[in-house]
Amino acid sequence: MKFRVSRSALVEAVSQVSKAVSQKTTIPILTGIKTTVDEKGLWLTGSNSDLTIQVQVPVMADDKELVHVEIIGSVVLPGRIFGDIVRKLPGDEVEWVVDDRWITTLRSGQAQFELKGLDPEEYPRLPQLREDQKFTLPAELLKSMIRQTGFAVSTSEARGVLTGVLWQLKEGILTFVATDSIRLSRRQAEVEAPADLAIENVIVPGKSLSELAKTLGDQEGFVDVIVSENQIMIRTERLLFFSRLLEGTYPDTNRVIPTGGKTEIVTSTKDLLQSVDRAALISRDGRDNVIKWTLKEEGVVEVNSAAQDVGSVVEEVAAKVSGEEMGISFNAQYMMDALKAVDSEEIRILFTGAMTPFVIQPADREDALHLIVPIRTR
Amino acid sequence: MKFRVSRSALVEAVSQVSKAVSQKTTIPILTGIKTTVDEKGLWLTGSNSDLTIQVQVPVMADDKELVHVEIIGSVVLPGRIFGDIVRKLPGDEVEWVVDDRWITTLRSGQAQFELKGLDPEEYPRLPQLREDQKFTLPAELLKSMIRQTGFAVSTSEARGVLTGVLWQLKEGILTFVATDSIRLSRRQAEVEAPADLAIENVIVPGKSLSELAKTLGDQEGFVDVIVSENQIMIRTERLLFFSRLLEGTYPDTNRVIPTGGKTEIVTSTKDLLQSVDRAALISRDGRDNVIKWTLKEEGVVEVNSAAQDVGSVVEEVAAKVSGEEMGISFNAQYMMDALKAVDSEEIRILFTGAMTPFVIQPADREDALHLIVPIRTR
Repeated sequence: MKFRVSRSALVEAVSQVSKAVSQKTTIPILTGIKTTVDEKGLWLTGSNSDLTIQVQVPVMADDKELVHVEIIGSVVLPGRIFGDIVRKLPGDEVEWVVDDRWITTLRSGQAQFELKGLDPEEYPRLPQLREDQKFTLPAELLKSMIRQTGFAVSTSEARGVLTGVLWQLKEGILTFVATDSIRLSRRQAEVEAPADLAIENVIVPGKSLSELAKTLGDQEGFVDVIVSENQIMIRTERLLFFSRLLEGTYPDTNRVIPTGGKTEIVTSTKDLLQSVDRAALISRDGRDNVIKWTLKEEGVVEVNSAAQDVGSVVEEVAAKVSGEEMGISFNAQYMMDALKAVDSEEIRILFTGAMTPFVIQPADREDALHLIVPIRTR
Repeated sequence: MKFRVSRSALVEAVSQVSKAVSQKTTIPILTGIKTTVDEKGLWLTGSNSDLTIQVQVPVMADDKELVHVEIIGSVVLPGRIFGDIVRKLPGDEVEWVVDDRWITTLRSGQAQFELKGLDPEEYPRLPQLREDQKFTLPAELLKSMIRQTGFAVSTSEARGVLTGVLWQLKEGILTFVATDSIRLSRRQAEVEAPADLAIENVIVPGKSLSELAKTLGDQEGFVDVIVSENQIMIRTERLLFFSRLLEGTYPDTNRVIPTGGKTEIVTSTKDLLQSVDRAALISRDGRDNVIKWTLKEEGVVEVNSAAQDVGSVVEEVAAKVSGEEMGISFNAQYMMDALKAVDSEEIRILFTGAMTPFVIQPADREDALHLIVPIRTR
């Protein structure tokens, strides 16, 4: 194995795969990054028990040579130190030579590192997925679907399938659902898929999805999604991202989403978010982080919160209020999470009663919704 | 107590005093910020057992009214929540009213907070210092003296006086010395002081000094320093900073600083720092974080480091080398700390032998030095 590679391209690739490299040393080889060079370029692979990321540095990009291959081959290098070295090398290019005992020499500028590598044959193979369940969507859309639902998964490992996001595909519409059973977020979008392709009960761990969003970064263009029985793969031109799926059956959430309502408000997303953020300063140290809204016919949401030892806050936000006047209490953090996930300037919230779930939606679209269960107060 | 204050000026003042506010609740009143308004403006005070910071928001600054006083008075508010509220208030101005039970109403824009305040009489008084030991220097100079010595104090509480920086004043020259007994840093500068003022054995806790540097921020102009038996005070127009002094006698460090040498190198500070930084990637996981330099007559410092399980690194840095060829080993982190503290582009290092301390100085000045004790290696 002998080649030269552009240092900046290598730095970027290492930082992408590093997110998947195992921090635990239970399986020592997984604390390494597998590197393979062939005629097409350099491949880096990082993996832990949940996800695997493979990134390519191509031989050429934008008419610039990024990799100059002399001898093809493969080696596994210790992940953390390899990444740190690559970032701090002094030159624009890295010369890379591996001997038959996996000793790897990295030369750049006046610096020369020798690293003890490992046999790449000991590194786990990539999962092999059949491509019969495949669809395509813009990377940007996938990232916003993750951002608008991922926060609502349960963070308690004991909750099983609720720690993941449900992916469903039906008649070309992809639906993401996440819930921790006190709040729920749902986002739908049209994707490029065969008309007859239906996907049900695919549950992707929330942690994998937040890593996926980071890995996609500001990547443009389309991504392929390939689903198998226990793995999902996201593929772009230079990237493969694998995640295991969660086992189990996701609960049917359709029946918990109310359709009619008693009171509806429409108001500025930003004003409402900032008022809740301020009220949470008082409520955050209390149990349940509870704040109260009073919806008033004259066109006002009164935001209240009080804590015995600290004090209280009251604030009014102008809103279009239709239906009955009412009061409702809920977890301030859950409300902030939902409001932050809405990209529209105006928001519509539909209330069904003081003790039943209410629905938060962008005022101008139907493809996203957030549901929160209120809190009973004295 | 009733007044209005500019929110941005208040935010800045709160963030300055917050550094001193106690996190521990052993003395509950010290988790609060004392606020006092009088004809001159608003004073905020934060304090813990080691240091006290008092900041003023004046009635007028740059022809703008910052504080509009109606009724003078004083109250102690819970520190953390008060700071968070001030940062998140919606308006440009804060209306502030305190009733006779210390209930404090803060009104800004459409938001209104009520906080439970505490009786200001229970808040400790500021130390009263006689001004007979006083000198003056630019804030900028004080900050760089702290930056160039503070890192060398011992971080182990058990080391007593070595956790502080020694301040000495003699014939108008202020000297800072810090050592943890393996490395030492010294910085000297001329200050404005009475010719006959001599200050000895004033030891300021390292932690207080790093808070002081942050509190001074990008403040320009001069600061007064007032020294008493067990307190030091730093004063600017709008700021009072008090720190307790450490008790005990600081060791005499003059005799450990070598004057002559065996080998001297002069080279680029930045090139040398970067090479040590890279070599430390290999050494950092090992005991003592040790790297080796070989000084070669042909004008090269060879930087080496090796770790059994990881690998090795070798790199050459061009340098003017005068005197005998030699090899020397030392803690890489200590070297990086010293090199980062040097502002000059070129550096001079004077070696007295492989087992005796060596001296790092900016090549173009004598008022700063760093000393490091080498490590014995096989």
